[in-house]
Amino acid sequence: MAQKPSIPKGTRDFGQQEMAERNYIFDTIRSVFRTYGYSQIETPAMENLSTLMGKYGEEGDKLLYRILNSGDAFAEVDFDKALAPQVCEKGLRYDLTVPFARFVVQHQNEIAFPFKRYQIQPVWRADRPQKGRYREFYQCDVDVIGSKSQINELELVQIVDKVFTLLDVNVIIKINNRKVLTGLAEICGHPDKVVDITVAIDKLDKIGLQAVKEEMMSKGLDEKSVGMLEPVLTLSGSNKEKIATMRSIMAGSETGMRGLDELEELFGFIESAGISSTVEIDLSLARGLNYYTGAIFEVKAADFQIGSICGGGRYDNLTGIFGLPDMSGVGVSFGADRIYDVLKGLDKFPAGLRSSTEILFANMGSDETAYIIPIAAALRGRGIAVEVYPDSCKLKKQFDYADRKAIPFLSICGGDEVAAGKVQLKNLNSGVQETFSKDDLDGIICFLKK
Amino acid sequence: MAQKPSIPKGTRDFGQQEMAERNYIFDTIRSVFRTYGYSQIETPAMENLSTLMGKYGEEGDKLLYRILNSGDAFAEVDFDKALAPQVCEKGLRYDLTVPFARFVVQHQNEIAFPFKRYQIQPVWRADRPQKGRYREFYQCDVDVIGSKSQINELELVQIVDKVFTLLDVNVIIKINNRKVLTGLAEICGHPDKVVDITVAIDKLDKIGLQAVKEEMMSKGLDEKSVGMLEPVLTLSGSNKEKIATMRSIMAGSETGMRGLDELEELFGFIESAGISSTVEIDLSLARGLNYYTGAIFEVKAADFQIGSICGGGRYDNLTGIFGLPDMSGVGVSFGADRIYDVLKGLDKFPAGLRSSTEILFANMGSDETAYIIPIAAALRGRGIAVEVYPDSCKLKKQFDYADRKAIPFLSICGGDEVAAGKVQLKNLNSGVQETFSKDDLDGIICFLKK
Repeated sequence: MAQKPSIPKGTRDFGQQEMAERNYIFDTIRSVFRTYGYSQIETPAMENLSTLMGKYGEEGDKLLYRILNSGDAFAEVDFDKALAPQVCEKGLRYDLTVPFARFVVQHQNEIAFPFKRYQIQPVWRADRPQKGRYREFYQCDVDVIGSKSQINELELVQIVDKVFTLLDVNVIIKINNRKVLTGLAEICGHPDKVVDITVAIDKLDKIGLQAVKEEMMSKGLDEKSVGMLEPVLTLSGSNKEKIATMRSIMAGSETGMRGLDELEELFGFIESAGISSTVEIDLSLARGLNYYTGAIFEVKAADFQIGSICGGGRYDNLTGIFGLPDMSGVGVSFGADRIYDVLKGLDKFPAGLRSSTEILFANMGSDETAYIIPIAAALRGRGIAVEVYPDSCKLKKQFDYADRKAIPFLSICGGDEVAAGKVQLKNLNSGVQETFSKDDLDGIICFLKK
Repeated sequence: MAQKPSIPKGTRDFGQQEMAERNYIFDTIRSVFRTYGYSQIETPAMENLSTLMGKYGEEGDKLLYRILNSGDAFAEVDFDKALAPQVCEKGLRYDLTVPFARFVVQHQNEIAFPFKRYQIQPVWRADRPQKGRYREFYQCDVDVIGSKSQINELELVQIVDKVFTLLDVNVIIKINNRKVLTGLAEICGHPDKVVDITVAIDKLDKIGLQAVKEEMMSKGLDEKSVGMLEPVLTLSGSNKEKIATMRSIMAGSETGMRGLDELEELFGFIESAGISSTVEIDLSLARGLNYYTGAIFEVKAADFQIGSICGGGRYDNLTGIFGLPDMSGVGVSFGADRIYDVLKGLDKFPAGLRSSTEILFANMGSDETAYIIPIAAALRGRGIAVEVYPDSCKLKKQFDYADRKAIPFLSICGGDEVAAGKVQLKNLNSGVQETFSKDDLDGIICFLKK
């Protein structure tokens, strides 16, 4: 009996249409990365388990896909003994960050630092599949490592701004700084409560000032501390004004002041660069508090309800675990699947993406086909995407094919056209029809491009 | 202790330079596929083991990478019981053909047939790594399924011709036909000896006519049969003449005559299409004799010693195992790694591939950087790839960076330039230096493009 074809849960096939749309997103992002001098790298889908294990927390270790040692090794395993190293020594890429760190350390002598790289590859997680969450999905990361300058943060903001301008999506770029959060925790005497404070700030819109204050107190902050934070909780005005307000209470924290210096420098750069998206300070951004050490970024679509579509930040010791300490880096990751949903939802994919084929020559028999072949070849030589319907069958079937593939032009060359050395062309959208000499490529192309 | 970073044997990292070179190959191939109306698809890296098992022979089953069921399932497995289905139900893609067949059957109602698809994705094999053989490598397949017309074979020949013309590599395209081989075996009364006969023909250049005849006899053919094959063994002349010679002895085999009809039709098409590569009939092509049913293709570089760099053929029942019988298809696969080696060996990669960055602005301090930021942004807006060195450090270090990344232009804007509103530019290859007004983007770009 034939097998019923299926794919593993949480994975996807991408057909013609989706590939065209996904390539449009990736090509747009890539074109922007290029103008900033980022180089593409690719790493293997399989990494040594020793590279992956322990890098994503206990939960992450569970979500890693492990690959069985190949055939022979597997056959000889004594399954009563400890399994793991004997059975598995490789796992599938879980994200692009750990492989990037491994790459930087392994190739440190070939790399020019600061190293600006981007990477667009699939990753795998043994997560429970659900709407919008897959077991295989692409990540699209851009990072620069080996430089502490805020110029790098600026460039990432510029890249985000440019990508979404090109994709015609209005976004809000939110920026926080881990050092400022540390500073807030320090000035109220609770340097250990960074996360609690940030999480409480995040609830301000939902539960209001009084409830946030209460939540902070319930986490162990005293009234005086919470009072000190009040100007931050009610932070308003321009980004400059927000920084000034924070400065007024931050004097007690050296780290906090450095964070404000960073924010101030970055916003100065942003102003001189001329960004078209809204960029705003948002102290409630709690992304990656465990590993980000400076800037924290999050990007939201202004006109579409969905979570963050891009995010990242600065980290100070990504490569330490592989033996290369003190490498500061900063990067962001574009969420391809969510960006896809935003473009679908806002109907922002360009119209031309659906079909790559511009003209279909119908198949009217073997003599007519022999006549068409050199014409088709000449048009392809001029960059036109041409199909010759391979089989001589009913025209209805050939029309259907053009329709299903959304091919905009059809040419039917029968005996008369062959005898006269002509090419007949029809615009399937407008119905307009015209006949050209078979050597009049310019005329034909002009008609196709109208 | 820090882990020493490494990757699994047989896998590779691709850095900036290799990615640029590999993308050049893939982009070239893709651009040709596009003009023939082939659509890109992608399938998951993981397929159900039931999809993969038994499709690549016993050896293939051993070379499949199996993925352990995820974390929790693994923990509860009773390893004394039968292992396979409990521990593993997914495996890594082994080639692109089986996933393509699975895709066609699974999505048959969404697909417009004949279905022309291409697919460029990595595959994995638990093979012994050696020079030129990897455990992870890209395949680049183009197929059309659902049409028996020789127009499809023609298009694949045109595609191969165009790809290697664009890559500036002279190739010889060799064509065989399984039905002709069947015919040869039939006319000498040994329809079961197709492989033996083909393998013997393949040795003609090496061991000579007499030895080939002897080999055939040692495989059980009698002298009369071998005598009947002699005109084929000494086949010469143009492709047309070769076909005529074969026709003269093939009358006894209906299948053989059909094969010759196919070859004749295909070569007629090829002649009218105008192919610049050498295309020749080669009866010794023994590729895929187990599954190809019509045309067999193999492509060799004319000026570089390496195995076949592209190959394929027609198959008649690819999708049968998944429940969709009678779908004839034909396709070829480009060997990306070998093509890479050919281009390296013949020094055919374009000069401009090495660096994507066109100009580096040196970092002379924060005031100068603030001055540069909008200029860099404006140049990027015009499509120029620009880097601003992020850190204010010794010029020597910044020069080294430009050198290592092979950035052709450097701009050093110090206090004088800032005060005068100028941009100084240096061509690092020629040493030529020029100064422009900071608003003279046209002048700057013209200098960069010279």
